Amino acid sequence: MAAQELSQEQLDKIYAFAVDLGRKAGQLLLESVEKRIGDGDHQLFEEKDSAVDIVTQTDEGTLPIPSAAAFARFLGEESYAKGQSRDYLIDEHPTWCIDPLDGTVNFTHIFPMFCVSIGFLVNHRPVIGVIYAPFQDQLFSSCVNRGAWLNEKRRLPLIRHSSIPPMPPNAPGKCILSCEWGKDRRDIPDGNMYRKIESFVNLAAEVGSRGGKGGMVHGVRSLGSATLDLAYTAMGSFDIWWEGGCWEWDVAAGIAILLEAGGLVTTANPPDDPETAPIPEVRLGSRLYLAISRPAGPSATETGRQSQERTVREVWKRVRQLEYTRPGA
Amino acid sequence: MAAQELSQEQLDKIYAFAVDLGRKAGQLLLESVEKRIGDGDHQLFEEKDSAVDIVTQTDEGTLPIPSAAAFARFLGEESYAKGQSRDYLIDEHPTWCIDPLDGTVNFTHIFPMFCVSIGFLVNHRPVIGVIYAPFQDQLFSSCVNRGAWLNEKRRLPLIRHSSIPPMPPNAPGKCILSCEWGKDRRDIPDGNMYRKIESFVNLAAEVGSRGGKGGMVHGVRSLGSATLDLAYTAMGSFDIWWEGGCWEWDVAAGIAILLEAGGLVTTANPPDDPETAPIPEVRLGSRLYLAISRPAGPSATETGRQSQERTVREVWKRVRQLEYTRPGA
Repeated sequence: MAAQELSQEQLDKIYAFAVDLGRKAGQLLLESVEKRIGDGDHQLFEEKDSAVDIVTQTDEGTLPIPSAAAFARFLGEESYAKGQSRDYLIDEHPTWCIDPLDGTVNFTHIFPMFCVSIGFLVNHRPVIGVIYAPFQDQLFSSCVNRGAWLNEKRRLPLIRHSSIPPMPPNAPGKCILSCEWGKDRRDIPDGNMYRKIESFVNLAAEVGSRGGKGGMVHGVRSLGSATLDLAYTAMGSFDIWWEGGCWEWDVAAGIAILLEAGGLVTTANPPDDPETAPIPEVRLGSRLYLAISRPAGPSATETGRQSQERTVREVWKRVRQLEYTRPGA
Repeated sequence: MAAQELSQEQLDKIYAFAVDLGRKAGQLLLESVEKRIGDGDHQLFEEKDSAVDIVTQTDEGTLPIPSAAAFARFLGEESYAKGQSRDYLIDEHPTWCIDPLDGTVNFTHIFPMFCVSIGFLVNHRPVIGVIYAPFQDQLFSSCVNRGAWLNEKRRLPLIRHSSIPPMPPNAPGKCILSCEWGKDRRDIPDGNMYRKIESFVNLAAEVGSRGGKGGMVHGVRSLGSATLDLAYTAMGSFDIWWEGGCWEWDVAAGIAILLEAGGLVTTANPPDDPETAPIPEVRLGSRLYLAISRPAGPSATETGRQSQERTVREVWKRVRQLEYTRPGA
């Protein structure tokens, strides 16, 4: 079933189902937290890959996909793990791309930044997104042509479109940067950890420092959930999200919501000529993401889109290329 | 009026007043956000000190302290600014130490991690703390001998005391580290920014790396609010908060809540002999803080307090000394 075969009515039904599913799955996560608060049971998880990568029992049985939406394939982290490969499995057919629990370390420690992430893709493009963070009862959702929403009542980004100021003239200055330390902490000279840190420091340091790379962002935020990083970028809370290493089930829903909220998403890795290279559309399975918030308002000299693209180029000038491949790729 | 002159009954009354004040002040913050969502007015702030230090109009008129609690002095960021000095002004007398808006950058960008922070001190010791984050409606509060609470119904830390596991045997491994990039982004070799980054990387890198300093924490989180960092440390979401550069009004309420929840707070700066040096009580005006979460349960070999102190020493071994002085000090 190709993209053009799905009517808006069909999409609306799938959207309503996804919102309902997100709330129900989130409720299950919350019940699991309540149980742990009562029992004090920290032993519900087993370790996987490394000490950082926790899979909880909840991660493995939260989401029974009902038959009503079963025409589409279901792909989640577990689908990949069971295939013993992490090849990119998504094709042009309608596909659910789901993480029943994003922010697993936060969930284990009962830090509220964990969520359910439900993306629905057609022709590789995320067209429906539902992110539900049950501890603070925040539901982010979108469907193409229906807007992006917080708790189904506030349009995203939160500041109303007609009044959004342009991206700052000296972006990334005055921007909030969202980024994550991730799980790859290997002490390899010029490895991903050190490339990330160098990029963070460039973006944070005072203007004019570090050979002209100092970006003096307003703030650096790390929540420990790629999904919620994207949700808050769609909301307009964060201006820039730069990340490498997460997977399509971490970002599918968030990208859907960001795009519907007027955001831009492309690759984290800078081209050789960041000033002039084309800005490519994000590849969902690339593991390299740069998202820019909100459809910034036009100024006297540029459109909103132009100000977003300017910000992409200014970030690219300050970050290192990261090396994340897919097993088998 | 000295500490010993305050009865539990008096403290309870002040506590009830502080909770009410926190909720009301938080509601004013929320109303300001609602107004901005409607108006799209990003121009409510003026710049101060540097591009990072925003003072909003809300920061200047949120909290009218009523006469019922006026026997105590009121000290907040504005008290210091008006005195054109930031000498440490707190003495042994009962004192309110308040930040009507912590996480100002978050507030400006409508990232929900902003809050009201109300501390009440006697003999320099924070004895009452109220932190209210209105966007997600989370109220953290404590009074000596009355416990620490989330939304006045869940005891902190969230996992019930009898079931809290000991701090991890290889702490800081498996711990969540909370830390902030802060406002001092000067590109000074061996300056505070670089000392902070080096410390963060030591705590994050794989075990055995970086000359034995690699700590392999489970996650690194930066929220942009010292007050909420402390609140989530008291809750047990974060295990370790290490920070330099914030002020007593940023931490007074959080320290009260953390202590009542069984946490430990001392100095961020490591002594020459981190293995054996005494672990000093925190100095409220020191601008250097290291907080350890929860009264960890006893193991076969150590008490909960011993496991917290062990964690302090393991952090000290991995962090650099920071240099924050007070103007005029």
